[in-house]
Amino acid sequence: MAIYSYDRLVQFVQAVFIKMGCPETDAITATTVLLSADLRGIDSHGVARLSGYIRLWEAGRINAKPNLRIVHETPSTAVVDGDAGLGLVVAPFAMKVAIEKAKQVGTGWVSVKNSNHFGIAGYHAMMALQEDMIGMAMTNASALVAPTFSVEKMLGTNPIAVAIPANNQPSFVADFATTTAANGKLEILQRKNQDTPIGWVQDKEGNASTDSNILKKQGSLLPLGSDREHGSHKGYALGSIVDIFSAVLSGASYGPWAPPFPAYIPMPENQPGQGLGHFLGAMRIDAFRPSQEFKDHMDHWIERFRNATPAPGHEKVLIPGDPEREMETIRMKDGIPLVDAVEQDLILVASNFKLTL
Amino acid sequence: MAIYSYDRLVQFVQAVFIKMGCPETDAITATTVLLSADLRGIDSHGVARLSGYIRLWEAGRINAKPNLRIVHETPSTAVVDGDAGLGLVVAPFAMKVAIEKAKQVGTGWVSVKNSNHFGIAGYHAMMALQEDMIGMAMTNASALVAPTFSVEKMLGTNPIAVAIPANNQPSFVADFATTTAANGKLEILQRKNQDTPIGWVQDKEGNASTDSNILKKQGSLLPLGSDREHGSHKGYALGSIVDIFSAVLSGASYGPWAPPFPAYIPMPENQPGQGLGHFLGAMRIDAFRPSQEFKDHMDHWIERFRNATPAPGHEKVLIPGDPEREMETIRMKDGIPLVDAVEQDLILVASNFKLTL
Repeated sequence: MAIYSYDRLVQFVQAVFIKMGCPETDAITATTVLLSADLRGIDSHGVARLSGYIRLWEAGRINAKPNLRIVHETPSTAVVDGDAGLGLVVAPFAMKVAIEKAKQVGTGWVSVKNSNHFGIAGYHAMMALQEDMIGMAMTNASALVAPTFSVEKMLGTNPIAVAIPANNQPSFVADFATTTAANGKLEILQRKNQDTPIGWVQDKEGNASTDSNILKKQGSLLPLGSDREHGSHKGYALGSIVDIFSAVLSGASYGPWAPPFPAYIPMPENQPGQGLGHFLGAMRIDAFRPSQEFKDHMDHWIERFRNATPAPGHEKVLIPGDPEREMETIRMKDGIPLVDAVEQDLILVASNFKLTL
Repeated sequence: MAIYSYDRLVQFVQAVFIKMGCPETDAITATTVLLSADLRGIDSHGVARLSGYIRLWEAGRINAKPNLRIVHETPSTAVVDGDAGLGLVVAPFAMKVAIEKAKQVGTGWVSVKNSNHFGIAGYHAMMALQEDMIGMAMTNASALVAPTFSVEKMLGTNPIAVAIPANNQPSFVADFATTTAANGKLEILQRKNQDTPIGWVQDKEGNASTDSNILKKQGSLLPLGSDREHGSHKGYALGSIVDIFSAVLSGASYGPWAPPFPAYIPMPENQPGQGLGHFLGAMRIDAFRPSQEFKDHMDHWIERFRNATPAPGHEKVLIPGDPEREMETIRMKDGIPLVDAVEQDLILVASNFKLTL
């Protein structure tokens, strides 16, 4: 485990994106989005994925110089064609379109096709906060999740993020996979050679499993709820809604056809659309009630929930976004720890691009 | 168990709403919404609740002749004041506003304050389908759910419904409480004197419980995910988002202050808003891509998911909305079964209003 300062990683990652051929402003955006994951403690979605993006670029599946454009729009909606660009660049572009539309008509909703993985959903949703708007972001992803009653991987971990501004309290920021556990949680257990709890994964026959390597043995992740008795049909519905809003509305590839993140996995045949899809939304607070009044009530909401009676053994009730915000403060100050495998991976990237980490 | 035809229940329920003083068109709307629950097999939200609505009206908490009005709006948004009307009437009014706005600018989003329970969320979301729109509906509700790490009831079962049109396939209609199990599921077990599975409820100390009567003993329902290890913080976040969109955006009462449905429970003190809140949305399909093209892809999506490899012991994978649609067909033809307690309750209502069931 080595510690790298945020600034040092920024410089390195930006240099890598520039070597890939990204325009400088895109390299800066992509770096900011990617590293927001490391800062916020979502280690699976940060620099740990950098070499994955590079392999997709080498395979010709990421276009470093995309021509991002709106292909259809109304006053409150748009479809953006990501031109196979980095999702890290495409999604902020689309979120800005949503925000501009919200400025004009109260809300803005943008569905994106022909994109790639966009980092953490929370980053894009949080872009709305500084505009006194509620932000939403979702994306489909490579199929790893079996619907309730199925053994076939049909959906990605399809996250949903919602960011809501408050006044004196920090913003409410929910950002979660629509599965019981995100794939990143499995990867941590794999590295430690540990089992998963029951309810995270199933084997290829649909039996409950605790094998953290089960995805490599035709097993699958389970939707939020784990099994039918505990509401997995709700997690399956949520993941499906994310898939449809992100990919069927936009013209991206949906369900089991979503392009896989690992470049060595061939693209599924008979693609029904182009690339991955995202869905981004912005709602102006004062399109509903005066912004100051709303944010005062959000303070009241947050304070009341933070002071809900804790269960014995727990100090306090958390508000969505608390752990990530606290982690961001710590890591911005003390640096970002990288496990050996990730550090080695970055050293290799540096060497290939003739950079120093 | 007695069987009543849909038409017979329509006549009776309409007569009851008219006796309460509802204008005839409102009585028709309220009846259609209420009975859509019985038709679709969500028995807890149909005529089983009729006497509950009456008691709220008797307590002066439901206004049978509300002056429904838009109190704030932009081209894509509105806030509706329900004037303490039946949610069964207020929500369809608000959904129509959302649909009209979507016709104009692509999408429409309406937050509602000063309302009451609105029946099943799915009904309101499905209003968008005939307009070639995606519909969304959510509502906050009386606090029965403890956030992760808490033993205090802070949120309602706060359902989310999303209805998405297809072409030859039936529409995709998700409609689910953001808890592991809806309160209606508990009520069924209470009547049968049966235990719940682990993961649905906790006792007043926050311990896992299987007591289906635990809510009467200071226990609480658990958010979707059941416990932290299985993602209950995600269910808690979802329920919170529903609460904030429905009540903080509109100016309704949120969190533990949401007005309780049972009229004998006093209103929580220091109400931060007015009544219950809802949030309704409509997105025109052709605000994103040609409607026919989208619906063809929805057919493709639905067919692919319906044909996903089933787990051993399961015949097929279901699409959200399948069970409710099948139930609606059966009950429209064969009638609606009412358990004895509900039938007795309706007989009492009939007698009080000098009606015959």
